[in-house]
Formats: sequence, C-alpha cells, structure tokens
Amino acid sequence: MAKDTRATLENLELQRFFFCPSFEIYGGTAGLYDLGPSGAAIERNLLNKWRDHFVIEEDMVEVRCSMLTPYKVLESSGHTAKFSDFMVSDTVDKMLYRADQLLELVLQKRIDESKSEEEKEKLHHDLKLVSDMNGEQLDACIEKWGIKSPNGNPLSKAVPFNLMFNTMIGPGERAIPGFLRPETAQGIFVNFPRLLDFNRGKLPFAAAQQGVAYRNEIAPRNQLVRCREFMMAEIEHFCDPLELDNVPKFETVKDLKISLFSSAQQAIDGAEAVEMTLEEAVNNKVICHKTLAYFVGRTYLFMVHIGIDPKRLRFRQHRDNEKAHYARDCWDAEIYLESMRSWLECTGIADRQAFDLTRHGQVTAKKGEQYNTQFVVNVTLPEPIVTVKVQIQPIKSVVGRLFKADAKAINTALEEYPEAEAEEVLKRFTEAEALLGGKPAKGKEKAAIDALSEADRAKFNELTTIEVAGKKLDYTMVTVAKTETKTNTRSFIPTVIEPSFGVGRIITALLEHSFYLRPDGQRRVLRLKPFIAPYSVVLLRISAKLVPENVHNDVRKELRRHRIVHICDDSSITIGRKYARTDEIGIPFAITLDGDTVTDGTVTLRERDTTNQIRLPIKDAIREVKHMINEEETWESVSARYPSVQPPADAE
Amino acid sequence: MAKDTRATLENLELQRFFFCPSFEIYGGTAGLYDLGPSGAAIERNLLNKWRDHFVIEEDMVEVRCSMLTPYKVLESSGHTAKFSDFMVSDTVDKMLYRADQLLELVLQKRIDESKSEEEKEKLHHDLKLVSDMNGEQLDACIEKWGIKSPNGNPLSKAVPFNLMFNTMIGPGERAIPGFLRPETAQGIFVNFPRLLDFNRGKLPFAAAQQGVAYRNEIAPRNQLVRCREFMMAEIEHFCDPLELDNVPKFETVKDLKISLFSSAQQAIDGAEAVEMTLEEAVNNKVICHKTLAYFVGRTYLFMVHIGIDPKRLRFRQHRDNEKAHYARDCWDAEIYLESMRSWLECTGIADRQAFDLTRHGQVTAKKGEQYNTQFVVNVTLPEPIVTVKVQIQPIKSVVGRLFKADAKAINTALEEYPEAEAEEVLKRFTEAEALLGGKPAKGKEKAAIDALSEADRAKFNELTTIEVAGKKLDYTMVTVAKTETKTNTRSFIPTVIEPSFGVGRIITALLEHSFYLRPDGQRRVLRLKPFIAPYSVVLLRISAKLVPENVHNDVRKELRRHRIVHICDDSSITIGRKYARTDEIGIPFAITLDGDTVTDGTVTLRERDTTNQIRLPIKDAIREVKHMINEEETWESVSARYPSVQPPADAE
Repeated sequence: MAKDTRATLENLELQRFFFCPSFEIYGGTAGLYDLGPSGAAIERNLLNKWRDHFVIEEDMVEVRCSMLTPYKVLESSGHTAKFSDFMVSDTVDKMLYRADQLLELVLQKRIDESKSEEEKEKLHHDLKLVSDMNGEQLDACIEKWGIKSPNGNPLSKAVPFNLMFNTMIGPGERAIPGFLRPETAQGIFVNFPRLLDFNRGKLPFAAAQQGVAYRNEIAPRNQLVRCREFMMAEIEHFCDPLELDNVPKFETVKDLKISLFSSAQQAIDGAEAVEMTLEEAVNNKVICHKTLAYFVGRTYLFMVHIGIDPKRLRFRQHRDNEKAHYARDCWDAEIYLESMRSWLECTGIADRQAFDLTRHGQVTAKKGEQYNTQFVVNVTLPEPIVTVKVQIQPIKSVVGRLFKADAKAINTALEEYPEAEAEEVLKRFTEAEALLGGKPAKGKEKAAIDALSEADRAKFNELTTIEVAGKKLDYTMVTVAKTETKTNTRSFIPTVIEPSFGVGRIITALLEHSFYLRPDGQRRVLRLKPFIAPYSVVLLRISAKLVPENVHNDVRKELRRHRIVHICDDSSITIGRKYARTDEIGIPFAITLDGDTVTDGTVTLRERDTTNQIRLPIKDAIREVKHMINEEETWESVSARYPSVQPPADAE
Repeated sequence: MAKDTRATLENLELQRFFFCPSFEIYGGTAGLYDLGPSGAAIERNLLNKWRDHFVIEEDMVEVRCSMLTPYKVLESSGHTAKFSDFMVSDTVDKMLYRADQLLELVLQKRIDESKSEEEKEKLHHDLKLVSDMNGEQLDACIEKWGIKSPNGNPLSKAVPFNLMFNTMIGPGERAIPGFLRPETAQGIFVNFPRLLDFNRGKLPFAAAQQGVAYRNEIAPRNQLVRCREFMMAEIEHFCDPLELDNVPKFETVKDLKISLFSSAQQAIDGAEAVEMTLEEAVNNKVICHKTLAYFVGRTYLFMVHIGIDPKRLRFRQHRDNEKAHYARDCWDAEIYLESMRSWLECTGIADRQAFDLTRHGQVTAKKGEQYNTQFVVNVTLPEPIVTVKVQIQPIKSVVGRLFKADAKAINTALEEYPEAEAEEVLKRFTEAEALLGGKPAKGKEKAAIDALSEADRAKFNELTTIEVAGKKLDYTMVTVAKTETKTNTRSFIPTVIEPSFGVGRIITALLEHSFYLRPDGQRRVLRLKPFIAPYSVVLLRISAKLVPENVHNDVRKELRRHRIVHICDDSSITIGRKYARTDEIGIPFAITLDGDTVTDGTVTLRERDTTNQIRLPIKDAIREVKHMINEEETWESVSARYPSVQPPADAE
C-alpha cells in the first residue's frame, strides 16, 4: 500500500465516520477513539462472527464481568507490581516518551543515516535488544549512543510507569482503591468456581468475554492500534495439565499450513517465519502442545474467514524476555500492515499455566489451607493408584497402660516411622514369627513366646524389640503389617490457555486489507465481506415519482423482517455517485427499484466488487442477499442464475 | 409474589449463575455484579431486540464512544457541579448513608410503629418530601425527628457527594483529570457535528448507544437495581424545536392505552395513574408534545414485547424538584416489583431541550463567536420570510463633502434610524414629492425644487428636512425608500429527546415477571420468550447408546447452521430432572433424540410452559423452532400441525 493510498484510507475512515478522536470538538484526548456508525457496525459484526466461530462452535460459556476491579484482585494477579512500561522524560520541556519506542526510533534513524558499516552493525545489534531491556539497560543504551529527546534535550533516567488507571470505589472514608481492568481475563478467573459448577465440574471448558479494557499508555499511537481504552475478546480455556495433548478436535486443524516464526528462528539473524502444518509444528515441538496449536489453528481460520489476507498473517512466538509475567509460552497472530511497514500483534495465544488460578486460590485460601479448594479440580482416575506401605501400629490399650503420659509421643513417632526402617522391622518380625511357627492367633502371642527355648526367646526378643521415642517396645505392644491404600482421584489447579484478541487492531488490519481503488485511481472501495460490512444493502430508487412511497416501504419492511440491515439513499445525486459513496463504506449490495418494480415486482441487484447487476424479483433478491450474508451462496453462484443487466449510463 | 417466592428466585439467580457479586471469592465489592452465562445471554438478547425495535426500525445510527471522559467535557455538561447525592455519616462508626434513603426508611418505620394518627400524618407529610429535599432541609428533618444512624449514633450534616469515578488520563505530569462517564449520552452529544454530517445534514435523526456507565453510589442495593457499573441503552433524538408535534409515525402509537401518572396527579393525595390513549394525553397536554409521546409509546411496546406485564407498567412524570439539571420534562417507565413492593424506574424519557448541545457549543466556540457553529442547524424555510423596511440612505458624496468630519456620525445615525420614524419620513417625502408632481428623475431634483412656488418650496423643505446627529439634512442629501429582505434559512440548536434504558433493572423486572412455580410448588420456571431465553434449545438423548455420536453431532451442526443457540445435557439424571433444570433457566424448547431418530429421522419437541410434546422430523423441528424464535409462529400454531406424544414416564 503506497503512502498516499494509506492517507486516502485514513481520510476515508474519518470522513465517513468509521471512527474519530473522542471529544474531538474539545481538541481530542490522546488514546481515546469513538466508533461512528460504520465503525461500530463493523465491530459488532466482527464480534458476532467471533462469537459464532469460538463461543457457539466450541460450546464455550460467555460472561460479562465488571471493569472496575479492586486493588487486591490485581495485586494477586501481579498487575500492581509488574504491569508497567519504562518511560523517559525530556528534562527541559517535560515531554514524556516510552523509552523503548524512542530508542527504536532513534537507533533506526542512525542506522539509516550512518555511513560506517561497522557502526550500522553495532546499532542494529542494540536495536534488536531494546524491546527486552530493563530500566538500567535502557539507561545504559541512552548513554552509550548519546540519545537526546526529539527536541534535542537530555533525557531523564528510565522509570517504570504502571499502566493501570486507578480510582476509588465507594464514598468518603469507606472507599477502597481500585483500577479499571487491564484485561478482561481476571473477571473470568475469579469466577472460575462458579463457571466450573455451571459446567457440572467437567474439564476442559472455556469461558469467553468480549469487552473493553484499559491501559494508560505513555504514548498512544496509530489510532485504534494503541489506545487507552480498547475492545478485547478473550477466551480462557481451562484444562487438565496432563491432557494438553489430548485434543480430539486437533484433527480438524492439523493440516493447516501456517507461517510460524518461532523464538529459535528469531534468534537467527535474517531468518524468517517458516510455513508448516500444525501437525508438523507439534511433532517437531515448535508449538509445545496440541491445545495451544489448536487455538493457533482456530485463530488462523477466524482471521482468514473475516477477510485478513493469509499471506500477510503469521504467528510469532514470544521470546523469553518479552513474555508476560504469567506466560509459559505465547504465540502472537501478527498481521502485516504495509502502511506501517511492520507486523502488528493482533491476537496473543498464551499458555498462562495455572498462574492466575493459583494466585487467586492462595490469596483467598481459608486459614490453614494452602489453596482455596474451589480452585482445585478433582478428577476420577481411570484406575485407582494403589500404594503399599508398611505400617507399625501401636496396640493402643497396651501402650497406654504401660507408657501412660508417653503413649502420645510413641503413637506420633510410630505414625512418622520412616518407610525404609519399617520395611526392615517387618522383615525382622516375620523372621521372629518363623521361630513361633508362624503368626500366633490373636491373644495367644504371649503363650507362644513363652513356649520358646531360652535362646530362641532371646533371639525373638532381639528381633522384635524396637525403640520408639526413647522407649523400648516389644512384640506384644505393636502390630506390623503391609497396608494398601487406593487413590481414586487426582487433584490439580487447571492450566489456562488464553487466546486474546485486540479488536481495534484487527479492524485496522481488516480495513487496510480490504481497501482498494477502482481502475480510475479515484473511487475508493472496501472489499468487506457481507457479514462484516456495516450495512448489507443500499436501497435506491430511480426516482421517487416512479416508485411510490408504499412500494418503497414494503421493500424496507421485508428487509427488516429478514434482519437485513440497510440504508436508503434518496438524495438527488447520480446513481453512480450513490454507488461510489456506498462502495467506500463497504456495502456489498445495491437494490434499485424502478418503474418496472411497480408493475412486475422485479429489481436490479448490484454487487460492489464486480459492479455487475442482475434483474430478479424482489423476493428473490432479498432471499439471495440473505444467503450471501450467511455464506450459503456467493455472488458467482447467484448471478449465474439470473439475467444480467447493463447499469444505467451514469452508474459506473 | 410472596416473600419466599422472591427468595426462591434470588436463590435461582445465584445458583444458576445468572449473576453474582463481582470478586465474590474476595468477599465481593459493593455495587458490582458479574453476569454469568445465562445472565449475559439474556442481556445480549435483550440488547439485540432493543436494537431491532429502536435502531433498525427507526433508522437510527449507532455509535460506541469512550467511557473515559475528560473533566472539561463533564464540566460543560454540568455533571461536575450537579451530579451528586447527599450523604450523612454515623459520627461514631463512620458508616455512610444516602441521606434520603435513610430518612425514608426511618420515617416509614415510625409511621408503622406510631400509635398517634396525628403524628402519623405529620410523618407521612415529611416522608413525601424527602426525595426532593436539599442539604439544609435534610438536616432540618433529621433534627426535627431526632433521627439517629441505624447503630444508634448521631448523624453528621448532609454533604453532597459527586457520584462520578475520577481518574487521571495519561502519564506523569502530563496527565489530565477525567471521569468514567455517568451516562452514555455525552459521547453522542460531542459527536453531534459528525453525526449530523453522516445524516447528510437532515433533522430529525437519532443516535443510539449501548454501553456501560458508572455511578459511585453511596449505598448500592438490590443487586442489578442500583449498581456502580451498569449497562445502559440510550437514544438521543435530535429535532427541530418547532417540529416537536410534527411526527407522522405518531399515528402508529396514538391509540395505545397507557397508564400515565402525571406530576399533577402525584400532587393529589391518594391519586393514582390514569389510563388513557397517547392521543388523549397529547390533546389534553398531559404529555407536552408528540415526539415525547411517541417515545413513550415505543417504549411501552418494547417493554410489553419482551415480556413485561403491561398491568405492572406505568409511566410517571417527574415532579419539578426531581428533574435532572438538563430536563424540561421527563417521563419514567416504571415497573411494579412485588418483591420490592414498589415501582422501579427502568427507563427515563427526557426532553433535554437544547441544554447539552448549547453548552458544548458555547464552550467550544471560536473566539468572538457565541456558539461553535457546528452545533447550529440551518434549515431551508418552505417560503422565504420577507422583511420590508424603510431605509434612509445618505447620498454619500454629498454628505461627505458638506459635513466632512461629521459624515461618519450621520451615516451611523441613519443606519440606526428608528423604524417608526423612518416610516414617517417616507410619508412626508412622498407628500413633498407630490408637490413636484412625482419623484423627479435622477440629477433633476434641484431643478424641480427650484421650479416650485415659494410657498410650496417652503412647504417642501419643511417636509423633507430631517435632523440627524444634530445636523439638518435635506432632500438632496438622502434617499428614502422601502427595501425588502428575504431570509431563506432558519438557524437553531436542536432539541434532544432522550429515552434512556437501565438494562439491569429491566432484566431484574423481566425475571420477576417471568418466574413461576409448577403446581407442585417446587419446580421453578422462567417464562422467558424464545428470543430472550439464554438458550433456545436443550438437546437431549434418551441414551447415548441408542443415538450414536455422529447423529447427535449432525443435529448440533444443523442447529448451529441456523444460529439456534443450544446446550446438550448428556448427564445420567432422569429426563424429568433435565427438563426441570432447563425450565428454571428459561430454555423454551427441548429436542429429544431416541432410537427412532436413527431410523426415521424424527424427534420429540417439548415446550416449556405447556410441557406438551410433539413428534416431527428433525428438519421440521429446527425450522419450527427458528420460526418461533423469530416470532413468525407460536407453539399453539406449530403444535396443532404435528401429532402430540406422551412424555416418558419419568419426565413431567
């Protein structure tokens, strides 16, 4: 996309009110955007398709949780401590910059301008490290390269800045500190016990949430790309950590060939993403398990389905240093934007392990418990696990009578008797019982021992005397036996796989991938799929005189009845200009009523990208449009069945 | 609804996770609620129906605006100054109370307990005034009745508490103060210029927005009824203040008979709401104009359509003292809740006049302008307004030459010459010209005057001499003539009619109006309409052995293809218990697969409220369910067409 094409698209987005800076008449507020009618409709259609693709198709449950979040919840999740970026300020004019962004900008500029290959290489080396640097490393880099603010002034040291918006919840002295949620995920995590119950205690299951989250970005930029308030669609898939490779549905995605850019590849200079099937990726351990790979596949299918160009879509693995504090592994769906000349992270698919559930489970545990048991899942084992153990048990009546106050200490010591020594004791007891000719009947032990020869009795006593808690116990005071215990359940805190979608970024990419100019180089078109387009149909009349109000209204009523969202354009401009101004907001179909409509009930139906037109009864037109919105038909298949017509002279 | 029935419903709502206190495992946070799967689905369905009923049906535009709002915007709208409640605190334990709520509670209790009719009457008198009291009046009332805190301690003076959550937008020293929006309306108002442009400059038009708003309630209560974070659906209808009674669509609602409780009725002790048609209401000036009445009608239709009992729905006019700072008039849709034994405000329909647009227009005006012209609408008049004016104009060359430095003052005085006197001058000039035998040709004036007789010339000079700015001017120095000016446009700031829906409250009312127990007094049912129910269908199998996985999956695929949201219940409980647990979350239809399904493709379809079942091919079942969701069929019409079947013995 040429630079001026990008400018044309940006103009279009503002002109036709897809979105605009919030509070624009007040000069705007950085990082805040409002969605106008077309933008809001596209977002809504995208979120509905996301719901179909993920929630409905995968039997997820969907929730809507509070955005206001008390301090202690985000303290548990690690956000109060770790959710920050480094910023530097111009020490003279006090302007603030995100340190990594500023450094990347300056280093890239120096590379472009440098004449020395050696220096270029050094700059390039540091540039690659910037996004992973901590505060001290950033400071060192600024000093090393003598970096100044864009206004030429010295920079302050890099300081971490927490990205959460804070507020007080409740009135006066009883107010508690809180934040606007930085992600929708925590609302799902804290509801895990209720959600597990809703799912009748079974794993795996997933909960989804669409909603707004907030990050007080130091340097918001690129409109919907880096906002302070942004729409997300998140899934938290809860599963058994031992079942991460047990994913029957993986079969449905395993043959997808996807461009994967692993952290290993990223470490190799000049290396690029590699295309492979998800099956290969799992087999070669590029992606660590099938659950993660499954969501990579589903995300790929979603992106391509809504209209993202698969050639400009890749999945990039996070390097160790860039991973969020909770992530074991993470793959970003990245979309290439020619306008930004870079890959834009649009979705993160993270293995958050049991991090969040464990933290919430620990913090909300009852006194004396390690975890809040509501966060622990118990599964029945296919076969019980049998543990065999030698136990030395006191004959309590005897021990009690003989040792009185010491009996308790003896009992405790026996309970804690080391496994290996107990085995030894069992061996000696068995040897001793052999002297008796086998284990005597209950109550007959003393008589049997007394019946032994003196030598044997000495030997017997030596074999069967054990020292416990400083006391000597003999054969009449304890029993030694092997016991079996069966375990029927296994307990664990679930692993969470989180596909998290940045909706504004996806819309940005989708608009760019959908935008083109007609061959005249002037007329702008958005090639949006019918189910994404803000309106499905524009309804036109050749003239209001030829098509009376009631005919027009009947058609509108039918469109509404079929839930086909449409607009009318009854202005007095040419039909060609009407097409142009609906093409540019992506409306796929135009239905035009004319004199013949009144007499024979037929209309013309025009498709946006081909600009072809067919003639058909209005009922058919509505039905076919509906089929095309529902993807049960294509324009190709529909238009083949009806006579094509020439557009009016002033139309195309 | 009996008290224990209410308790049963509340149990159900929590048990089946319609909603729960947010951050429940952390002890909850007052005023914040999360919607679980069923609650979120009901809300979504309700919002979609709202969109159909208002946005689509009325060709509104829909937007999604930022929730973070800078201080200056809410300063313009009056919220920083006026958006507050009075609170009092217990001077000992520091507990906080909303003053009006506490007083109402205490006064009602005293009324219930008082033995003196005279005292009862006095208490009752004050009770009625509480909600309209200012701080001083509240203090006086507390003193008069010796009211203490619920814990028996003295109360502080009433102090206003602003209900907006505040935060800082942006990092460090460059941060600006902001709030979480207290209503979604302002986002629409500040975008008025773009929205007007999107609508090609035409009025009336309406913009709608669904979204969350925030009020830092002093005393949140009754779950979704008074929350700190709550879902709204708002419409801002912009119209010409002279066209408020020009509403062609009023015809479609004028005959609706609606229960109206005007402020005049409320002033009469013991008076109640009166049923009347909207036409009567407008004709009798009960409702001030047709635009407001139209939205009362549309709101009534919406409420009844979604399942609110019309007998428990009324519209109450705000009394003068309770109106918001921006409102000229306001009617609340109130729904009666037996559980609360009171009417609950669920929707406000306010005439906000031009208040907000005027304020934003003033604050953002360019220097030297009264308003930001983007907020001013110009309409073409059907016929231009012609203004006729007598103008006395100096013949500048003559006046300049004769009066030199005084010429400017003369010119100014002539411009400001009083209308009535100018008319008089014209009359005298015409009389004088008659002496000349009509107006002389240009340049011939002097000659014509000189030709008069002395007496006539004296008379002529007397008639045509005027004194301006202390100087005497004669016929040769000025022209006097009638001029016509035409005005083609009229300029104004639009009036805004705002129907504003509290979604959580409507859901609360809807659940109560939909809840009942089966005759056994045990089994709980939610009589939700199919398009509101969280799931449309529960899919059951008599046994997994009889109905293989692929048959089951094919049915599920078909349901999904038709976008019929369903759940499966394959647990091992009886089918009767399965019905019971789907009835109680309002699922209207059960489709059961059995052995015959595999051989002949038929299933049983059960309806929730009748518990009747019919046998029909699976394809028909899906089609009929879809028709019933879309309200193109009813269970009555569908079940008449298929054989009914007896439920299994353990089913009902």
